[in-house]
Amino acid sequence: MKKALSIDIGGTKIYAAYVNEAGEIVSDIEKHATPKTSEEIIEKLKEIIANHEKEVEFSAISTAGGVNKENTKVICSTANLPFGYPKTDFSALSNKPVFVENDANCAAWAEYKIGSAKGYDNNITLTLGTGVGGGIIVDGKLLKGKSGVAGEMHFKMSMDKKRHCSCGAYDCFEIYASGNGLRITGIELTGNKDITTYDIIEGVDKGDSTMLRVYNIWQNYIIAGLIGLADIFDPDCIVLSGSMGKFCDVEYMQELVNDEIVTLPTKILHATSGNYAGMIGAALLGFEKFSQACSK
Amino acid sequence: MKKALSIDIGGTKIYAAYVNEAGEIVSDIEKHATPKTSEEIIEKLKEIIANHEKEVEFSAISTAGGVNKENTKVICSTANLPFGYPKTDFSALSNKPVFVENDANCAAWAEYKIGSAKGYDNNITLTLGTGVGGGIIVDGKLLKGKSGVAGEMHFKMSMDKKRHCSCGAYDCFEIYASGNGLRITGIELTGNKDITTYDIIEGVDKGDSTMLRVYNIWQNYIIAGLIGLADIFDPDCIVLSGSMGKFCDVEYMQELVNDEIVTLPTKILHATSGNYAGMIGAALLGFEKFSQACSK
Repeated sequence: MKKALSIDIGGTKIYAAYVNEAGEIVSDIEKHATPKTSEEIIEKLKEIIANHEKEVEFSAISTAGGVNKENTKVICSTANLPFGYPKTDFSALSNKPVFVENDANCAAWAEYKIGSAKGYDNNITLTLGTGVGGGIIVDGKLLKGKSGVAGEMHFKMSMDKKRHCSCGAYDCFEIYASGNGLRITGIELTGNKDITTYDIIEGVDKGDSTMLRVYNIWQNYIIAGLIGLADIFDPDCIVLSGSMGKFCDVEYMQELVNDEIVTLPTKILHATSGNYAGMIGAALLGFEKFSQACSK
Repeated sequence: MKKALSIDIGGTKIYAAYVNEAGEIVSDIEKHATPKTSEEIIEKLKEIIANHEKEVEFSAISTAGGVNKENTKVICSTANLPFGYPKTDFSALSNKPVFVENDANCAAWAEYKIGSAKGYDNNITLTLGTGVGGGIIVDGKLLKGKSGVAGEMHFKMSMDKKRHCSCGAYDCFEIYASGNGLRITGIELTGNKDITTYDIIEGVDKGDSTMLRVYNIWQNYIIAGLIGLADIFDPDCIVLSGSMGKFCDVEYMQELVNDEIVTLPTKILHATSGNYAGMIGAALLGFEKFSQACSK
Protein backbone atom coordinates (compact mmCIF):
# COMPACT_ATOMS: atom_id res chain seq x y z
CA MET A 1 0.00 0.00 0.00
CA LYS A 2 1.22 3.52 -0.80
CA LYS A 3 2.52 5.61 2.06
CA ALA A 4 3.24 9.24 2.86
CA LEU A 5 5.61 10.90 5.27
CA SER A 6 3.35 12.83 7.61
CA ILE A 7 4.53 15.59 9.92
CA ASP A 8 2.60 17.30 12.70
CA ILE A 9 4.04 20.63 13.84
CA GLY A 10 2.89 21.33 17.39
CA GLY A 11 3.78 24.14 19.75
CA THR A 12 6.33 22.03 21.63
CA LYS A 13 6.89 18.89 19.52
CA ILE A 14 7.17 17.96 15.88
CA TYR A 15 6.00 14.41 15.14
CA ALA A 16 6.80 12.49 11.96
CA ALA A 17 5.80 9.01 10.74
CA TYR A 18 4.77 7.06 7.68
CA VAL A 19 1.00 6.86 7.13
CA ASN A 20 -0.56 4.58 4.53
CA GLU A 21 -3.66 5.09 2.37
CA ALA A 22 -5.79 3.38 5.00
CA GLY A 23 -4.78 6.00 7.57
CA GLU A 24 -2.56 3.61 9.50
CA ILE A 25 0.71 4.73 11.03
CA VAL A 26 3.19 2.21 9.62
CA SER A 27 6.47 3.30 11.22
CA ASP A 28 7.86 4.45 14.53
CA ILE A 29 6.91 8.03 15.39
CA GLU A 30 9.86 10.43 15.40
CA LYS A 31 9.66 13.19 17.98
CA HIS A 32 11.59 16.44 17.69
CA ALA A 33 11.46 19.53 19.89
CA THR A 34 9.78 22.39 17.99
CA PRO A 35 12.46 25.03 17.33
CA LYS A 36 11.79 28.59 18.44
CA THR A 37 11.97 30.46 15.12
CA SER A 38 10.20 29.88 11.84
CA GLU A 39 13.53 29.63 9.99
CA GLU A 40 14.67 26.85 12.30
CA ILE A 41 11.35 25.04 11.92
CA ILE A 42 11.69 25.16 8.15
CA GLU A 43 15.27 23.80 8.43
CA LYS A 44 14.03 21.01 10.69
CA LEU A 45 11.26 20.14 8.21
CA LYS A 46 13.78 20.01 5.35
CA GLU A 47 15.98 17.69 7.38
CA ILE A 48 13.08 15.35 8.31
CA ILE A 49 11.82 15.26 4.72
CA ALA A 50 15.32 14.66 3.27
CA ASN A 51 15.71 11.63 5.54
CA HIS A 52 12.51 10.01 4.33
CA GLU A 53 11.35 11.27 0.97
CA LYS A 54 12.79 8.38 -1.01
CA GLU A 55 10.52 5.98 0.85
CA VAL A 56 7.22 7.76 0.26
CA GLU A 57 4.87 9.15 -2.37
CA PHE A 58 4.77 12.62 -0.86
CA SER A 59 5.10 14.54 2.41
CA ALA A 60 2.10 15.86 4.35
CA ILE A 61 2.26 18.55 7.00
CA SER A 62 -0.32 19.40 9.65
CA THR A 63 0.23 22.85 11.16
CA ALA A 64 -1.47 25.66 13.05
CA GLY A 65 -2.49 28.62 10.91
CA GLY A 66 -4.70 29.05 7.88
CA VAL A 67 -3.47 27.27 4.74
CA ASN A 68 -4.20 28.36 1.17
CA LYS A 69 -6.48 26.43 -1.20
CA GLU A 70 -3.50 25.01 -3.06
CA ASN A 71 -2.17 23.51 0.21
CA THR A 72 1.28 25.02 -0.24
CA LYS A 73 1.45 28.00 2.15
CA VAL A 74 0.33 29.20 5.57
CA ILE A 75 -1.45 32.47 4.77
CA CYS A 76 -3.02 33.32 8.15
CA SER A 77 -1.17 32.94 11.41
CA THR A 78 -2.92 32.52 14.74
CA ALA A 79 -2.07 33.02 18.38
CA ASN A 80 -1.19 29.33 18.46
CA LEU A 81 1.47 29.93 15.84
CA PRO A 82 3.27 32.91 17.35
CA PHE A 83 6.38 32.29 15.28
CA GLY A 84 4.51 32.52 11.96
CA TYR A 85 6.04 31.33 8.73
CA PRO A 86 7.64 33.79 6.34
CA LYS A 87 5.13 32.85 3.62
CA THR A 88 7.25 29.80 2.89
CA ASP A 89 6.20 27.72 -0.10
CA PHE A 90 6.29 24.30 1.52
CA SER A 91 6.39 22.55 -1.85
CA ALA A 92 9.99 23.79 -2.16
CA LEU A 93 11.03 21.66 0.84
CA SER A 94 11.09 18.39 -1.09
CA ASN A 95 11.79 16.88 -4.49
CA LYS A 96 8.48 15.07 -4.16
CA PRO A 97 5.04 16.70 -3.64
CA VAL A 98 4.35 18.37 -0.29
CA PHE A 99 0.83 18.83 1.06
CA VAL A 100 0.09 21.28 3.90
CA GLU A 101 -3.17 21.73 5.76
CA ASN A 102 -4.39 23.35 8.96
CA ASP A 103 -4.21 20.98 11.94
CA ALA A 104 -7.89 21.25 12.87
CA ASN A 105 -8.86 20.52 9.26
CA CYS A 106 -6.53 17.49 9.31
CA ALA A 107 -8.10 16.24 12.55
CA ALA A 108 -11.57 16.67 11.03
CA TRP A 109 -10.58 14.70 7.94
CA ALA A 110 -9.18 11.90 10.12
CA GLU A 111 -12.49 11.73 12.02
CA TYR A 112 -14.36 11.64 8.72
CA LYS A 113 -12.22 8.93 7.15
CA ILE A 114 -11.36 6.63 10.06
CA GLY A 115 -13.03 8.10 13.17
CA SER A 116 -16.44 8.94 14.60
CA ALA A 117 -17.69 10.83 11.56
CA LYS A 118 -16.98 7.97 9.16
CA GLY A 119 -19.87 7.59 6.74
CA TYR A 120 -21.31 11.03 7.56
CA ASP A 121 -20.79 13.37 4.62
CA ASN A 122 -21.81 16.50 6.52
CA ASN A 123 -19.93 16.88 9.77
CA ILE A 124 -17.88 19.20 11.95
CA THR A 125 -14.94 18.38 14.20
CA LEU A 126 -14.05 20.83 16.95
CA THR A 127 -10.58 20.42 18.43
CA LEU A 128 -10.92 21.70 21.98
CA GLY A 129 -7.47 22.34 23.44
CA THR A 130 -5.80 25.50 24.69
CA GLY A 131 -7.75 27.12 21.85
CA VAL A 132 -10.48 25.78 19.59
CA GLY A 133 -9.92 24.58 16.04
CA GLY A 134 -12.65 23.76 13.59
CA GLY A 135 -12.80 21.52 10.54
CA ILE A 136 -15.99 21.32 8.51
CA ILE A 137 -16.95 18.70 5.93
CA VAL A 138 -19.72 19.61 3.48
CA ASP A 139 -21.00 16.87 1.17
CA GLY A 140 -17.77 14.94 1.66
CA LYS A 141 -15.45 17.86 0.95
CA LEU A 142 -13.41 19.96 3.36
CA LEU A 143 -14.87 23.49 3.62
CA LYS A 144 -12.05 25.85 2.62
CA GLY A 145 -13.84 29.06 1.61
CA LYS A 146 -12.53 31.62 -0.88
CA SER A 147 -8.91 31.52 0.27
CA GLY A 148 -8.58 28.25 2.17
CA VAL A 149 -8.90 29.42 5.76
CA ALA A 150 -12.56 28.67 6.58
CA GLY A 151 -13.51 26.89 9.81
CA GLU A 152 -12.27 29.47 12.30
CA MET A 153 -14.34 29.26 15.48
CA HIS A 154 -14.29 32.97 16.28
CA PHE A 155 -18.01 33.66 16.32
CA LYS A 156 -19.28 35.79 19.19
CA MET A 157 -20.99 34.39 22.29
CA SER A 158 -21.75 37.83 23.71
CA MET A 159 -21.75 41.45 22.64
CA ASP A 160 -20.83 42.76 26.07
CA LYS A 161 -17.02 42.53 25.73
CA LYS A 162 -16.65 40.14 28.63
CA ARG A 163 -13.60 38.10 27.62
CA HIS A 164 -10.65 39.04 25.47
CA CYS A 165 -9.89 36.30 22.92
CA SER A 166 -6.43 35.31 21.72
CA CYS A 167 -7.38 36.73 18.30
CA GLY A 168 -7.59 40.25 19.71
CA ALA A 169 -11.40 40.49 19.60
CA TYR A 170 -13.90 39.87 22.39
CA ASP A 171 -16.12 36.95 23.29
CA CYS A 172 -15.30 34.48 20.53
CA PHE A 173 -16.50 30.89 20.99
CA GLU A 174 -12.84 29.90 21.42
CA ILE A 175 -12.39 31.90 24.62
CA TYR A 176 -15.40 30.16 26.19
CA ALA A 177 -15.19 26.61 24.83
CA SER A 178 -11.42 26.03 25.05
CA GLY A 179 -9.35 24.78 27.97
CA ASN A 180 -8.43 28.40 28.45
CA GLY A 181 -12.16 29.17 28.61
CA LEU A 182 -12.64 26.55 31.32
CA ARG A 183 -9.75 28.08 33.27
CA ILE A 184 -11.19 31.61 32.97
CA THR A 185 -14.59 30.33 34.15
CA GLY A 186 -12.75 28.76 37.09
CA ILE A 187 -11.09 32.07 37.95
CA GLU A 188 -14.42 33.91 37.65
CA LEU A 189 -16.15 31.53 40.06
CA THR A 190 -13.35 31.03 42.61
CA GLY A 191 -11.34 34.25 42.45
CA ASN A 192 -8.22 32.03 42.33
CA LYS A 193 -6.09 33.39 39.51
CA ASP A 194 -3.73 30.41 39.63
CA ILE A 195 -6.37 27.78 39.04
CA THR A 196 -5.60 25.36 36.18
CA THR A 197 -7.74 23.15 33.99
CA TYR A 198 -6.19 20.20 35.84
CA ASP A 199 -7.40 21.57 39.18
CA ILE A 200 -10.89 21.93 37.78
CA ILE A 201 -11.06 18.47 36.20
CA GLU A 202 -9.61 16.95 39.38
CA GLY A 203 -12.23 18.80 41.43
CA VAL A 204 -14.99 17.51 39.17
CA ASP A 205 -13.70 13.94 39.60
CA LYS A 206 -13.79 14.40 43.38
CA GLY A 207 -17.32 15.81 43.26
CA ASP A 208 -16.36 19.34 44.38
CA SER A 209 -19.53 21.40 43.95
CA THR A 210 -17.77 24.61 42.87
CA MET A 211 -15.68 22.78 40.30
CA LEU A 212 -18.81 21.03 39.06
CA ARG A 213 -20.44 24.44 38.58
CA VAL A 214 -17.39 25.66 36.65
CA TYR A 215 -17.49 22.56 34.48
CA ASN A 216 -21.25 22.84 33.83
CA ILE A 217 -20.98 26.48 32.81
CA TRP A 218 -18.14 25.58 30.45
CA GLN A 219 -20.24 22.78 28.93
CA ASN A 220 -23.20 25.12 28.51
CA TYR A 221 -20.98 27.55 26.58
CA ILE A 222 -19.99 24.73 24.25
CA ILE A 223 -23.63 23.67 23.87
CA ALA A 224 -24.60 27.25 22.96
CA GLY A 225 -21.99 27.23 20.19
CA LEU A 226 -22.98 23.78 18.95
CA ILE A 227 -26.61 24.95 18.59
CA GLY A 228 -25.49 27.70 16.22
CA LEU A 229 -23.28 25.38 14.19
CA ALA A 230 -26.04 22.77 13.95
CA ASP A 231 -28.54 25.39 12.73
CA ILE A 232 -26.10 26.78 10.19
CA PHE A 233 -24.81 23.44 8.80
CA ASP A 234 -27.53 20.83 9.56
CA PRO A 235 -24.67 18.34 10.08
CA ASP A 236 -24.97 14.58 10.56
CA CYS A 237 -22.70 14.95 13.57
CA ILE A 238 -20.35 17.22 15.48
CA VAL A 239 -17.24 15.52 16.84
CA LEU A 240 -15.45 16.88 19.91
CA SER A 241 -11.72 16.23 19.71
CA GLY A 242 -8.56 17.59 21.36
CA SER A 243 -7.30 17.39 24.91
CA MET A 244 -10.49 18.94 26.32
CA GLY A 245 -12.93 17.08 24.07
CA LYS A 246 -12.74 13.94 26.15
CA PHE A 247 -14.12 15.78 29.20
CA CYS A 248 -17.35 16.65 27.41
CA ASP A 249 -20.53 14.79 28.32
CA VAL A 250 -21.59 14.25 24.73
CA GLU A 251 -24.90 12.56 25.52
CA TYR A 252 -26.01 15.49 27.67
CA MET A 253 -24.81 17.92 25.03
CA GLN A 254 -26.64 16.09 22.26
CA GLU A 255 -29.89 16.18 24.19
CA LEU A 256 -29.68 19.93 24.88
CA VAL A 257 -28.54 20.78 21.36
CA ASN A 258 -31.38 18.82 19.78
CA ASP A 259 -33.87 20.44 22.15
CA GLU A 260 -33.05 23.90 20.78
CA ILE A 261 -32.10 23.64 17.14
CA VAL A 262 -34.56 24.47 14.37
CA THR A 263 -32.91 22.00 11.99
CA LEU A 264 -33.17 18.20 12.28
CA PRO A 265 -31.48 16.28 15.13
CA THR A 266 -27.71 15.86 15.01
CA LYS A 267 -25.25 13.65 16.89
CA ILE A 268 -22.58 14.94 19.27
CA LEU A 269 -19.70 12.45 19.43
CA HIS A 270 -16.29 11.96 20.97
CA ALA A 271 -13.36 11.77 18.58
CA THR A 272 -11.95 8.30 18.02
CA SER A 273 -9.07 8.77 15.60
CA GLY A 274 -6.57 9.24 18.42
CA ASN A 275 -3.68 11.49 19.34
CA TYR A 276 -2.16 11.46 15.88
CA ALA A 277 -5.32 12.58 14.09
CA GLY A 278 -3.47 15.57 12.60
CA MET A 279 -0.78 13.40 11.04
CA ILE A 280 -3.31 10.85 9.79
CA GLY A 281 -5.67 13.46 8.36
CA ALA A 282 -2.86 15.35 6.61
CA ALA A 283 -1.71 12.15 4.89
CA LEU A 284 -5.25 11.11 3.90
CA LEU A 285 -6.01 14.57 2.50
CA GLY A 286 -2.72 14.39 0.60
CA PHE A 287 -3.64 11.02 -0.92
CA GLU A 288 -7.01 12.51 -1.88
CA LYS A 289 -5.35 15.45 -3.62
CA PHE A 290 -2.45 13.74 -5.32
CA SER A 291 -4.49 10.73 -6.44
CA GLN A 292 -6.95 13.12 -8.05
CA ALA A 293 -4.10 15.02 -9.67
CA CYS A 294 -2.74 11.76 -11.15
CA SER A 295 -6.08 10.57 -12.46
CA LYS A 296 -6.64 13.78 -14.42
CA MET B 1 -35.21 30.07 -24.24
CA LYS B 2 -36.71 27.54 -21.82
CA LYS B 3 -38.95 28.86 -19.09
CA ALA B 4 -40.37 27.74 -15.75
CA LEU B 5 -43.47 28.71 -13.85
CA SER B 6 -42.15 30.17 -10.62
CA ILE B 7 -44.25 30.71 -7.52
CA ASP B 8 -43.32 32.60 -4.36
CA ILE B 9 -45.47 31.80 -1.32
CA GLY B 10 -45.33 34.73 1.08
CA GLY B 11 -47.16 35.31 4.33
CA THR B 12 -49.75 37.58 2.69
CA LYS B 13 -49.31 37.15 -1.08
CA ILE B 14 -48.55 34.37 -3.53
CA TYR B 15 -46.74 35.58 -6.65
CA ALA B 16 -46.46 33.59 -9.87
CA ALA B 17 -44.71 34.32 -13.17
CA TYR B 18 -42.69 32.74 -15.96
CA VAL B 19 -38.93 32.92 -15.47
CA ASN B 20 -36.47 31.95 -18.19
CA GLU B 21 -33.04 30.30 -17.93
CA ALA B 22 -31.37 33.70 -17.78
CA GLY B 23 -33.33 34.54 -14.63
CA GLU B 24 -35.58 37.02 -16.41
CA ILE B 25 -39.27 37.35 -15.56
CA VAL B 26 -40.92 36.96 -18.95
CA SER B 27 -44.62 37.35 -18.12
CA ASP B 28 -46.94 39.45 -16.02
CA ILE B 29 -46.76 38.67 -12.32
CA GLU B 30 -49.93 37.11 -10.94
CA LYS B 31 -50.79 38.08 -7.37
CA HIS B 32 -53.04 36.01 -5.15
CA ALA B 33 -53.88 36.48 -1.46
CA THR B 34 -52.25 33.74 0.61
CA PRO B 35 -55.04 31.52 1.97
CA LYS B 36 -55.18 30.92 5.71
CA THR B 37 -54.81 27.14 5.86
CA SER B 38 -52.23 24.82 4.37
CA GLU B 39 -54.94 22.83 2.58
CA GLU B 40 -56.19 25.98 0.87
CA ILE B 41 -52.65 26.98 -0.07
CA ILE B 42 -52.10 23.59 -1.68
CA GLU B 43 -55.38 23.95 -3.59
CA LYS B 44 -54.35 27.41 -4.75
CA LEU B 45 -50.96 26.09 -5.93
CA LYS B 46 -52.66 23.29 -7.88
CA GLU B 47 -54.92 25.83 -9.54
CA ILE B 48 -52.04 28.16 -10.48
CA ILE B 49 -49.95 25.27 -11.80
CA ALA B 50 -52.85 23.77 -13.78
CA ASN B 51 -53.35 27.11 -15.53
CA HIS B 52 -49.75 27.29 -16.70
CA GLU B 53 -47.98 23.95 -16.77
CA LYS B 54 -48.48 23.37 -20.48
CA GLU B 55 -46.41 26.46 -21.22
CA VAL B 56 -43.35 25.60 -19.13
CA GLU B 57 -40.64 22.99 -18.49
CA PHE B 58 -41.43 22.70 -14.78
CA SER B 59 -42.83 24.59 -11.80
CA ALA B 60 -40.60 26.08 -9.10
CA ILE B 61 -41.80 27.09 -5.65
CA SER B 62 -40.09 29.39 -3.15
CA THR B 63 -41.49 28.99 0.35
CA ALA B 64 -40.72 29.57 4.01
CA GLY B 65 -39.66 26.46 5.92
CA GLY B 66 -36.86 23.94 5.52
CA VAL B 67 -37.04 21.88 2.33
CA ASN B 68 -35.62 18.35 1.93
CA LYS B 69 -32.57 17.57 -0.22
CA GLU B 70 -34.79 16.15 -2.98
CA ASN B 71 -36.62 19.51 -3.19
CA THR B 72 -40.05 17.90 -2.91
CA LYS B 73 -41.22 18.55 0.66
CA VAL B 74 -41.14 21.12 3.45
CA ILE B 75 -39.72 19.15 6.38
CA CYS B 76 -39.18 21.92 8.95
CA SER B 77 -41.69 24.66 9.57
CA THR B 78 -40.76 28.02 11.02
CA ALA B 79 -42.52 30.83 12.82
CA ASN B 80 -42.82 32.50 9.42
CA LEU B 81 -44.85 29.54 8.18
CA PRO B 82 -47.41 29.25 10.98
CA PHE B 83 -49.80 27.27 8.81
CA GLY B 84 -47.24 24.54 8.07
CA TYR B 85 -47.72 22.04 5.28
CA PRO B 86 -49.03 18.57 5.98
CA LYS B 87 -45.81 17.01 4.64
CA THR B 88 -47.22 17.49 1.16
CA ASP B 89 -45.19 16.04 -1.68
CA PHE B 90 -45.16 19.04 -4.00
CA SER B 91 -44.19 16.91 -6.97
CA ALA B 92 -47.74 15.54 -6.90
CA LEU B 93 -49.15 18.99 -7.71
CA SER B 94 -48.30 18.84 -11.40
CA ASN B 95 -47.91 16.49 -14.35
CA LYS B 96 -44.53 18.13 -14.97
CA PRO B 97 -41.63 18.32 -12.51
CA VAL B 98 -42.00 20.54 -9.46
CA PHE B 99 -39.02 22.02 -7.63
CA VAL B 100 -39.36 23.44 -4.10
CA GLU B 101 -36.75 25.34 -2.11
CA ASN B 102 -36.59 27.53 0.97
CA ASP B 103 -37.15 31.21 0.15
CA ALA B 104 -33.86 32.43 1.67
CA ASN B 105 -31.97 29.78 -0.29
CA CYS B 106 -33.77 30.91 -3.46
CA ALA B 107 -32.87 34.54 -2.76
CA ALA B 108 -29.23 33.53 -2.22
CA TRP B 109 -29.15 31.63 -5.49
CA ALA B 110 -30.61 34.63 -7.33
CA GLU B 111 -27.87 36.85 -5.87
CA TYR B 112 -25.25 34.30 -6.91
CA LYS B 113 -26.53 33.88 -10.46
CA ILE B 114 -27.71 37.38 -11.42
CA GLY B 115 -27.08 39.63 -8.40
CA SER B 116 -24.28 40.99 -6.22
CA ALA B 117 -22.65 37.63 -5.58
CA LYS B 118 -22.31 36.80 -9.28
CA GLY B 119 -18.90 35.30 -9.95
CA TYR B 120 -18.23 34.60 -6.26
CA ASP B 121 -18.36 30.86 -5.62
CA ASN B 122 -18.30 31.20 -1.82
CA ASN B 123 -20.95 33.57 -0.56
CA ILE B 124 -23.78 34.07 1.90
CA THR B 125 -27.02 35.98 1.44
CA LEU B 126 -28.91 37.09 4.53
CA THR B 127 -32.52 38.06 3.98
CA LEU B 128 -33.26 40.58 6.70
CA GLY B 129 -37.01 41.04 7.04
CA THR B 130 -39.38 40.40 9.92
CA GLY B 131 -37.06 37.47 10.61
CA VAL B 132 -33.69 36.53 9.12
CA GLY B 133 -33.20 33.93 6.41
CA GLY B 134 -29.86 32.58 5.30
CA GLY B 135 -28.65 31.01 2.08
CA ILE B 136 -25.08 29.80 1.82
CA ILE B 137 -23.13 28.94 -1.34
CA VAL B 138 -20.01 26.78 -0.92
CA ASP B 139 -17.83 26.24 -4.00
CA GLY B 140 -20.75 27.10 -6.26
CA LYS B 141 -23.24 24.78 -4.58
CA LEU B 142 -26.09 25.57 -2.20
CA LEU B 143 -25.28 24.36 1.32
CA LYS B 144 -28.09 21.96 2.26
CA GLY B 145 -26.59 19.82 5.06
CA LYS B 146 -27.62 16.29 5.91
CA SER B 147 -31.36 16.79 5.45
CA GLY B 148 -31.64 19.94 3.34
CA VAL B 149 -32.38 22.56 5.96
CA ALA B 150 -28.96 24.16 6.55
CA GLY B 151 -28.57 27.95 6.62
CA GLU B 152 -30.76 28.72 9.63
CA MET B 153 -29.51 31.88 11.32
CA HIS B 154 -30.30 30.82 14.88
CA PHE B 155 -26.84 31.07 16.39
CA LYS B 156 -26.66 32.76 19.77
CA MET B 157 -25.55 36.36 20.31
CA SER B 158 -25.67 36.08 24.10
CA MET B 159 -25.93 33.45 26.80
CA ASP B 160 -27.86 35.69 29.16
CA LYS B 161 -31.38 34.94 27.89
CA LYS B 162 -32.09 38.52 26.97
CA ARG B 163 -34.46 38.16 24.03
CA HIS B 164 -36.91 35.41 23.21
CA CYS B 165 -36.63 34.38 19.57
CA SER B 166 -39.51 33.29 17.34
CA CYS B 167 -37.98 29.79 17.33
CA GLY B 168 -38.62 29.40 21.05
CA ALA B 169 -34.99 29.73 22.14
CA TYR B 170 -33.19 32.82 23.40
CA ASP B 171 -30.85 35.32 21.80
CA CYS B 172 -30.59 33.96 18.27
CA PHE B 173 -29.02 36.21 15.63
CA GLU B 174 -32.48 36.52 14.07
CA ILE B 175 -34.00 38.30 17.06
CA TYR B 176 -31.22 40.93 16.95
CA ALA B 177 -30.58 41.38 13.22
CA SER B 178 -34.16 41.29 11.91
CA GLY B 179 -36.66 44.10 11.57
CA ASN B 180 -38.20 42.69 14.70
CA GLY B 181 -34.77 43.02 16.35
CA LEU B 182 -34.59 46.68 15.33
CA ARG B 183 -38.06 47.22 16.82
CA ILE B 184 -37.12 45.53 20.12
CA THR B 185 -33.96 47.65 20.33
CA GLY B 186 -36.21 50.67 19.77
CA ILE B 187 -38.50 49.60 22.63
CA GLU B 188 -35.50 48.98 24.90
CA LEU B 189 -34.08 52.46 24.28
CA THR B 190 -37.30 54.48 24.26
CA GLY B 191 -39.65 52.54 26.49
CA ASN B 192 -42.29 53.01 23.78
CA LYS B 193 -43.84 49.60 23.22
CA ASP B 194 -45.72 50.77 20.13
CA ILE B 195 -42.65 51.90 18.22
CA THR B 196 -42.35 50.42 14.69
CA THR B 197 -39.42 49.88 12.35
CA TYR B 198 -40.92 52.65 10.21
CA ASP B 199 -40.80 55.09 13.14
CA ILE B 200 -37.16 54.21 13.69
CA ILE B 201 -36.10 54.50 10.05
CA GLU B 202 -38.04 57.77 9.73
CA GLY B 203 -36.30 59.05 12.87
CA VAL B 204 -32.91 58.12 11.44
CA ASP B 205 -33.74 59.97 8.21
CA LYS B 206 -34.64 63.05 10.25
CA GLY B 207 -31.43 62.82 12.29
CA ASP B 208 -33.15 62.01 15.59
CA SER B 209 -30.30 61.11 17.96
CA THR B 210 -32.18 58.39 19.87
CA MET B 211 -33.30 56.71 16.66
CA LEU B 212 -29.74 56.92 15.36
CA ARG B 213 -28.57 55.14 18.52
CA VAL B 214 -31.20 52.44 18.02
CA TYR B 215 -30.12 52.02 14.41
CA ASN B 216 -26.41 51.89 15.29
CA ILE B 217 -26.94 49.24 17.96
CA TRP B 218 -28.96 47.17 15.46
CA GLN B 219 -26.17 47.50 12.88
CA ASN B 220 -23.59 46.46 15.45
CA TYR B 221 -25.59 43.32 16.20
CA ILE B 222 -25.57 42.48 12.52
CA ILE B 223 -21.82 43.18 12.31
CA ALA B 224 -21.19 40.84 15.26
CA GLY B 225 -23.03 38.06 13.43
CA LEU B 226 -21.26 38.75 10.14
CA ILE B 227 -17.88 38.42 11.88
CA GLY B 228 -18.76 34.90 12.98
CA LEU B 229 -20.06 33.91 9.55
CA ALA B 230 -16.96 35.33 7.85
CA ASP B 231 -14.66 33.40 10.21
CA ILE B 232 -16.59 30.17 9.73
CA PHE B 233 -16.99 30.36 5.92
CA ASP B 234 -14.18 32.63 4.64
CA PRO B 235 -16.69 33.84 2.01
CA ASP B 236 -15.96 36.08 -0.98
CA CYS B 237 -18.92 38.19 0.07
CA ILE B 238 -21.98 38.44 2.29
CA VAL B 239 -25.04 39.97 0.64
CA LEU B 240 -27.70 41.73 2.69
CA SER B 241 -31.13 41.32 1.16
CA GLY B 242 -34.74 41.65 2.28
CA SER B 243 -36.81 44.63 3.33
CA MET B 244 -34.32 45.59 6.07
CA GLY B 245 -31.16 44.89 4.08
CA LYS B 246 -31.39 48.13 2.19
CA PHE B 247 -31.08 50.13 5.42
CA CYS B 248 -27.67 48.65 6.21
CA ASP B 249 -24.57 50.79 5.75
CA VAL B 250 -22.60 48.06 3.99
CA GLU B 251 -19.37 50.05 3.65
CA TYR B 252 -19.26 50.70 7.40
CA MET B 253 -20.13 47.07 8.10
CA GLN B 254 -17.44 45.78 5.75
CA GLU B 255 -14.80 47.91 7.45
CA LEU B 256 -15.72 46.71 10.95
CA VAL B 257 -16.08 43.08 9.91
CA ASN B 258 -12.68 43.04 8.22
CA ASP B 259 -11.10 44.72 11.25
CA GLU B 260 -12.07 41.79 13.46
CA ILE B 261 -12.06 38.59 11.44
CA VAL B 262 -9.13 36.16 11.57
CA THR B 263 -9.79 35.01 8.00
CA LEU B 264 -9.05 37.08 4.87
CA PRO B 265 -11.08 40.21 4.02
CA THR B 266 -14.60 39.75 2.69
CA LYS B 267 -17.09 42.06 0.99
CA ILE B 268 -20.42 43.13 2.48
CA LEU B 269 -22.84 44.02 -0.32
CA HIS B 270 -26.43 45.09 -0.90
CA ALA B 271 -28.62 42.67 -2.80
CA THR B 272 -29.34 43.61 -6.42
CA SER B 273 -31.58 40.85 -7.74
CA GLY B 274 -34.72 42.70 -6.71
CA ASN B 275 -38.05 42.04 -5.04
CA TYR B 276 -38.68 38.83 -6.94
CA ALA B 277 -35.37 37.19 -5.97
CA GLY B 278 -37.20 34.22 -4.44
CA MET B 279 -39.10 33.49 -7.64
CA ILE B 280 -36.01 33.97 -9.81
CA GLY B 281 -33.78 31.85 -7.58
CA ALA B 282 -36.31 29.02 -7.38
CA ALA B 283 -36.54 28.87 -11.16
CA LEU B 284 -32.76 29.02 -11.66
CA LEU B 285 -32.19 26.27 -9.06
CA GLY B 286 -34.86 24.22 -10.81
CA PHE B 287 -33.13 24.63 -14.18
CA GLU B 288 -29.86 23.59 -12.49
CA LYS B 289 -31.47 20.46 -11.06
CA PHE B 290 -33.59 19.35 -13.99
CA SER B 291 -30.92 20.09 -16.59
CA GLN B 292 -28.51 17.90 -14.63
CA ALA B 293 -31.15 15.18 -14.36
CA CYS B 294 -31.62 15.22 -18.14
CA SER B 295 -27.92 15.13 -18.96
CA LYS B 296 -27.38 12.01 -16.88
